[in-house]
Amino acid sequence: MGKKLTNDPYAELGVSSKKTGVHKATKNLSKGLYPGAFCQIVPMSRNLPDEVRECYAQVIHSDGVGTKSNVAYLAMKEGISEDFLYNLAQDAIVMNTDDMACVGIVDDIYISNHIARNSGRVNDEALAKIIQGYSNFFQKMQQLGINLYNAGGETADVGSYTTTMGIDVTASATILKDKIIDCSNIGPNEYIVGLASDGKSSYEDKENSGIRSNGLTLAINTLLRPHYRRYEETMDGTIDKEKLFCGKYWLEDKLVGTSLTIAEAILSPTRTYLPVLRDILQDDIQVSGIIHCSGGGLTKSINFGNCIAYVKDEACNLKVPTIFKEIQEIRNIDDYHMYQTFNMGIGMELVVKSLQDAEKVIRHANTYDIPAFIIGHTEKSKDDKNMVKIGSSIYTK
Amino acid sequence: MGKKLTNDPYAELGVSSKKTGVHKATKNLSKGLYPGAFCQIVPMSRNLPDEVRECYAQVIHSDGVGTKSNVAYLAMKEGISEDFLYNLAQDAIVMNTDDMACVGIVDDIYISNHIARNSGRVNDEALAKIIQGYSNFFQKMQQLGINLYNAGGETADVGSYTTTMGIDVTASATILKDKIIDCSNIGPNEYIVGLASDGKSSYEDKENSGIRSNGLTLAINTLLRPHYRRYEETMDGTIDKEKLFCGKYWLEDKLVGTSLTIAEAILSPTRTYLPVLRDILQDDIQVSGIIHCSGGGLTKSINFGNCIAYVKDEACNLKVPTIFKEIQEIRNIDDYHMYQTFNMGIGMELVVKSLQDAEKVIRHANTYDIPAFIIGHTEKSKDDKNMVKIGSSIYTK
Repeated sequence: MGKKLTNDPYAELGVSSKKTGVHKATKNLSKGLYPGAFCQIVPMSRNLPDEVRECYAQVIHSDGVGTKSNVAYLAMKEGISEDFLYNLAQDAIVMNTDDMACVGIVDDIYISNHIARNSGRVNDEALAKIIQGYSNFFQKMQQLGINLYNAGGETADVGSYTTTMGIDVTASATILKDKIIDCSNIGPNEYIVGLASDGKSSYEDKENSGIRSNGLTLAINTLLRPHYRRYEETMDGTIDKEKLFCGKYWLEDKLVGTSLTIAEAILSPTRTYLPVLRDILQDDIQVSGIIHCSGGGLTKSINFGNCIAYVKDEACNLKVPTIFKEIQEIRNIDDYHMYQTFNMGIGMELVVKSLQDAEKVIRHANTYDIPAFIIGHTEKSKDDKNMVKIGSSIYTK
Repeated sequence: MGKKLTNDPYAELGVSSKKTGVHKATKNLSKGLYPGAFCQIVPMSRNLPDEVRECYAQVIHSDGVGTKSNVAYLAMKEGISEDFLYNLAQDAIVMNTDDMACVGIVDDIYISNHIARNSGRVNDEALAKIIQGYSNFFQKMQQLGINLYNAGGETADVGSYTTTMGIDVTASATILKDKIIDCSNIGPNEYIVGLASDGKSSYEDKENSGIRSNGLTLAINTLLRPHYRRYEETMDGTIDKEKLFCGKYWLEDKLVGTSLTIAEAILSPTRTYLPVLRDILQDDIQVSGIIHCSGGGLTKSINFGNCIAYVKDEACNLKVPTIFKEIQEIRNIDDYHMYQTFNMGIGMELVVKSLQDAEKVIRHANTYDIPAFIIGHTEKSKDDKNMVKIGSSIYTK
């Protein structure tokens, strides 16, 4: 067990950032061709020619926006804006594509959308906006030379267990086996480069708070004020009401230090790193592993590599995006739990062989106005288990 | 508009069996390579060799068990049995595979599971059973010579909008273009053969009620008694409570005329027709179209073919499975709405060229102890729109 300072504020809200239960439940299921890779990689279909099956593999990946959809719902119900509905598609897509990019897939991805809705609260007009968001994002990526395709989807009217809406995607793509990035290749004495999650990249229309689509339940209930308890449909009935919507903010309030309202900050569309990662993978850079700082935040890397200590002390010196500082301060959360819930300003980590490679990665990110930093290095861990160290916060597997 | 006798009892419960809103919202999205096929069929990835892209196509399909999960939840909470949790995986898988079978895919399918849960009500032990169900069904199908593979999945703790659990699957497979069944080939003067959804096939362990995984919200609220209103988490908060759990049954009650309890009848695992359809497609039978009677029930075919009238008068003469008769009688639903909500005993329809072909289909089904019947024929429709006629119930597009 790592150093544990206080109760896990996220677990108190019914969310496990470590997913211990899920990992236990899935331990008997096949882990695919590259068990150490960031995403499960499976063989090509048996009905394809042998040569194709020898050279290629595929990934079928599922993820969604989680409780971020509730904030778009609140903005709609409060009459602030329905435009946030368009952005949910980007969140759902990027939560998949940017996981898949970690195994080397950066183009030519099929997107199947799944929407679960309460049709009494999310009407057909709102549904049309959510679905339009998929086309919008496909077009946007097309302009950056990245091809995403619609593979269909399903909208289920399941108001008996869905109080608002669940927005999920399954993405599918193939990859040449030679091109696969397998995190089990991460070794000691390598450089960890972090790509910023906040700011405004050259392909974004406005500033991004950096929150992406993880830790939202904690963010929502820490920032938004008790006023929103009137929307019981956005509250987990198994959690003490007093723990929900404990914040001071209205959705329309400014998040001081940014150009964003609270609604815009919480609903900042999850930035995709596909353009940057495509350029990096086309360059002559030795990439050992790529880690999307999604569930598990800045400690996500603990699941990858063998006997690796990720020493990310330099991450402590970075300017933490305002939204995370605000959450930490209001709820009085220690660094230990912040790092394992939020990305804290680093959306994607690359582990590379040399300082020169690290510098190349940084230059590629900067091309798109995305700051990037060497946030640490890898070592051989002392006790044969992966560990992550960020300043005085130490996590063991 | 077709003949409309009464209010739609399903729409009153917040479910659209016709999905008008969804069809409107998705009208601008690409419909794939074969717009008239039962499932969306998309090209193979661009990074594969040209020969492969010329000869093969792929399907990425999403569907789930819908509100059936709530009944497994009730059985668990009432202390009746947790074993129903294992079956949900079969429901979620078959809702996908049997749609995909309609385009000719009957083997070698990758299954990605997606579970949305309220972790305060569905704990890690329950989750483990649901996930174990996937492995169980893969093994069962393996014994029948059909290969389903685990492609990973995602469990999301999203209690802020999920009151119990949502169990969904995305399935993916490739197919030789030559082998694709495209419902747009359905012509006039063809035979419609229906495969029974109830009874006990040779590969099932017990009798099947035939309900499959559509119309469940209506079934639940018609059959189960007000006692279950205490589980508010299974009730759509936007629907008048008096309309929910209006039935007379306890979950443990017998469904007279069957060997099943009400819980077992509602939770009968969705029967897959993969073994039968595999055999049919390997035989010398001219199949124009295959239609899974899922959402839309016995009227589903109206969405397929061009200017086709599906005259299914013989379907009126079949013995309707007990569970549907009971629902119809208790809620006093007319035939018109029953046919468009439930499969009424026919889970799968095949449209074939000749009487000989129809007889071959029936023989293949009977091999697995599945009754099959010629339930009607196709005609050229009079007004250039598809229509379905089942006795005096007439549906137009």
